[in-house]
Amino acid sequence: METGRAIKASRSWINQNGHQILQEYAELLRLPNHASDLPNIERNCDFISQMFAKRGFEMQLLRLEGAPPIVYGERLVAGATRTYCIYAHYDGQPVVAENWTHPPFEPTLYDGAMSNGGRPIPFPTSPNEEIDEESRLYARSASDDKAPIISLAAALDGLEAAGIGLTSNIKLFFDGEEETGSPNVENYLRTFDHLLNDITVWMLVDGAVYPTGDPSFKFGSRGRTAAQLTVYGPARPLHSGHYGNWAPVPGQLLARLLASMKDDEGKVLIDGFYDSVIPMSDFERGQAEEAPNIDEQLKEELALHTTEGNGESLNLRIQLPSLTIRGLASGSVGEKARNVIPTTAVAELEMRLVNGNDPDSMLDLLEAHIKKEGWFVVDEEPSLEIRKAHRKVIKMIRDEDSFAASKVDMDRPEIQEVIAGLKSFTGDSGVFLPATGASNRIYGLIFNDIGKPGICINTVNRDNNQHGADENVRIGNLWYGADILSVVLTLPE
Amino acid sequence: METGRAIKASRSWINQNGHQILQEYAELLRLPNHASDLPNIERNCDFISQMFAKRGFEMQLLRLEGAPPIVYGERLVAGATRTYCIYAHYDGQPVVAENWTHPPFEPTLYDGAMSNGGRPIPFPTSPNEEIDEESRLYARSASDDKAPIISLAAALDGLEAAGIGLTSNIKLFFDGEEETGSPNVENYLRTFDHLLNDITVWMLVDGAVYPTGDPSFKFGSRGRTAAQLTVYGPARPLHSGHYGNWAPVPGQLLARLLASMKDDEGKVLIDGFYDSVIPMSDFERGQAEEAPNIDEQLKEELALHTTEGNGESLNLRIQLPSLTIRGLASGSVGEKARNVIPTTAVAELEMRLVNGNDPDSMLDLLEAHIKKEGWFVVDEEPSLEIRKAHRKVIKMIRDEDSFAASKVDMDRPEIQEVIAGLKSFTGDSGVFLPATGASNRIYGLIFNDIGKPGICINTVNRDNNQHGADENVRIGNLWYGADILSVVLTLPE
Repeated sequence: METGRAIKASRSWINQNGHQILQEYAELLRLPNHASDLPNIERNCDFISQMFAKRGFEMQLLRLEGAPPIVYGERLVAGATRTYCIYAHYDGQPVVAENWTHPPFEPTLYDGAMSNGGRPIPFPTSPNEEIDEESRLYARSASDDKAPIISLAAALDGLEAAGIGLTSNIKLFFDGEEETGSPNVENYLRTFDHLLNDITVWMLVDGAVYPTGDPSFKFGSRGRTAAQLTVYGPARPLHSGHYGNWAPVPGQLLARLLASMKDDEGKVLIDGFYDSVIPMSDFERGQAEEAPNIDEQLKEELALHTTEGNGESLNLRIQLPSLTIRGLASGSVGEKARNVIPTTAVAELEMRLVNGNDPDSMLDLLEAHIKKEGWFVVDEEPSLEIRKAHRKVIKMIRDEDSFAASKVDMDRPEIQEVIAGLKSFTGDSGVFLPATGASNRIYGLIFNDIGKPGICINTVNRDNNQHGADENVRIGNLWYGADILSVVLTLPE
Repeated sequence: METGRAIKASRSWINQNGHQILQEYAELLRLPNHASDLPNIERNCDFISQMFAKRGFEMQLLRLEGAPPIVYGERLVAGATRTYCIYAHYDGQPVVAENWTHPPFEPTLYDGAMSNGGRPIPFPTSPNEEIDEESRLYARSASDDKAPIISLAAALDGLEAAGIGLTSNIKLFFDGEEETGSPNVENYLRTFDHLLNDITVWMLVDGAVYPTGDPSFKFGSRGRTAAQLTVYGPARPLHSGHYGNWAPVPGQLLARLLASMKDDEGKVLIDGFYDSVIPMSDFERGQAEEAPNIDEQLKEELALHTTEGNGESLNLRIQLPSLTIRGLASGSVGEKARNVIPTTAVAELEMRLVNGNDPDSMLDLLEAHIKKEGWFVVDEEPSLEIRKAHRKVIKMIRDEDSFAASKVDMDRPEIQEVIAGLKSFTGDSGVFLPATGASNRIYGLIFNDIGKPGICINTVNRDNNQHGADENVRIGNLWYGADILSVVLTLPE
């Protein structure tokens, strides 16, 4: 099976039946889908189950008490030696309807992005009616993450119409609570392991394509940990006139500590901070280096003159752990500023972690650094006696929301096989990133907890307003999704 | 005239007439006295004018349109070669009546401090009735700053009863808007200069005695200036996962800048920061060094292990300029902390200034330091173009509320004469501080703007809750006020 035929089938189907695809999609988007709204969640499940039952899948709803069901399906292919599982999520973010131009569950077509002067247009109604790829469909979950569901349906239809068979067993695993953190997915994966343990590669279809618009694929995400640091000055706020130049100033003490943690180029100075990083393979580094450099575009957009790391690209920088001051507070600023020496200064530090970094061990390194700087470290509010007994007292509270990075080894043969197939479609334009900078619970569950390889496939436009008002999908990206999934469904054996 | 006779006269009068003093004081304290409440302000003026008219003063109300009047008086003494002016203020802080145990304008006597288990007692009614010096009178302005007014009346009565004449011409200048910043006093001083230009020394009677309870006198106060610094990261808040370890973190940049400004011992590292300080005279330094060291007591109270300046005493430290971070903010802390790289970080810096420090020049030194650290400094919100054009951009907003220190040269003969007289009463217990750490607008107006020498005389107890609810005066401090003013009224010629 060569890639070209699958794409041709997909495009031919779309050209003739775009109006039907959009009609079916509009029906799906009319169903409200917040994970807590269980009656509507069931309506989504029924609709999606019927969509894929029609397309040759044996469907069932996997159920755990009180949780949105997993819409599960399988279509087995005689003689297939691989099983791919398509993951998407049918639930959506909550909506604040008054912020939307149109009601979020009344899908509305525009001839372009609203932000670009687009105007509402009627849905197409006839076969072969041309649909501009720049037109947009506005509705909650239009991009995040019902788009892969309709793209997959179109891909299946296109291949069917062209008489092209699938080359792998295909399973479906559509999550109904991703936007609330997938609290039950771990349990689902364990409980229904008998349905899932033969999966060769998970295809996690979610998220937006590369900023350049090029196809993008990711193989991991960073972990995370955080700590809150509080340093102490006088036991009560002091008049800065009466006591200034005598009482220690907590903001000053904190500034000196934070300054010791990172140099002017953004290199973290905590001993051992980079030691546990498992380096990328040559292939992975090559992929990260080959990805189009978007730094200049981003720097322009973000009004940045210089970035951390002496100009090393974002795609390489996110393959290392980070240390970010996400919050600072002492006394008051602006109109509320008062002439006081505050009692405390607080910093919220966050780390993003890569392959090899253990969250607790990374915080241990941070704590060791603080001690090396002469601080007495406590993990609860220090008594006045403790404050009197030590020159520099700091409270360090470790964040409970800590987890390791998720990373698939891109050199694994079953992954190399998929990459090769995808590249035969994308050519040089495909971006294959070893890991995204952000963290992703689903990656962690699949890559780490059940130890399966997976690939994240991005299909939608970046300017989709996911999670906000006026969420939308660019129609061209729905079609792209059908193309890429046609490739996945027909990867050479 | 020896000091002993004046004190004896004061104490004899108090012992016999304490009940009358408290009755007269209660009448004065019943008059609400916020500067904006002009009808009640007039009632205060009338009452105080009558108090001193009865005691041999020619009284008049100095008036400027829309401002509380100055209660002015003079009592000339035949052959006197000096004129002392007693400054106090009859206005008070606004009250939040529901926070008070008793209504703030219903003076209530207690047998001790409420905070120490004191209980309400009736006012004394008969001559020679013993009044415990530890008892407290609760009312707005009981300490701040009607106390000197009643103490002065008692001192005059005591001297009169003992047949002891005044040794200087005495003028009265009672301010009616100190608690709102004395906005018209400069104009009053200029407009009525013909009444005031023969004053030899101003006696500014306000504030609490030294923390040890010892008599205290001050000869200046620190100036002040401030600046708000804002440093810039990305133009919009960035996801700390997607961009962490690449995008510059404004809190980190700010920490490094602030850390460069002060060393671990609290020494300011800004070039020239201490250069313009006019050193104290030997006499002044001697007085500051002789003052009882309260550092250990304060460190205990404030739970401090170490203070800035390698253990140099508070009284010496406040004779130098200070640099205080009174506010810090970037992103959010605590429950509101989010996984972002914030767009800005803000520091509110404040300096207290001493003799010789020009506020603008001190901020110039700060700005030069920031530039030396590689920052591009702007004084208004920088455009995105400016942010793109420079690696480190900082906005520095100079505070409009800036003023120089106020300082009387303690070696001036007319001041030395007063100090000698006061010391003959206080003996070794008197604390004569070259300057207080805080700032005082009245000192500035008198010492700097009209260039007159003055002495600040503190009479009330420190735990007086001035400005808050349950303001009070310790009765022993009212009597002490009468003693010390008796000494002032009869200083040897």
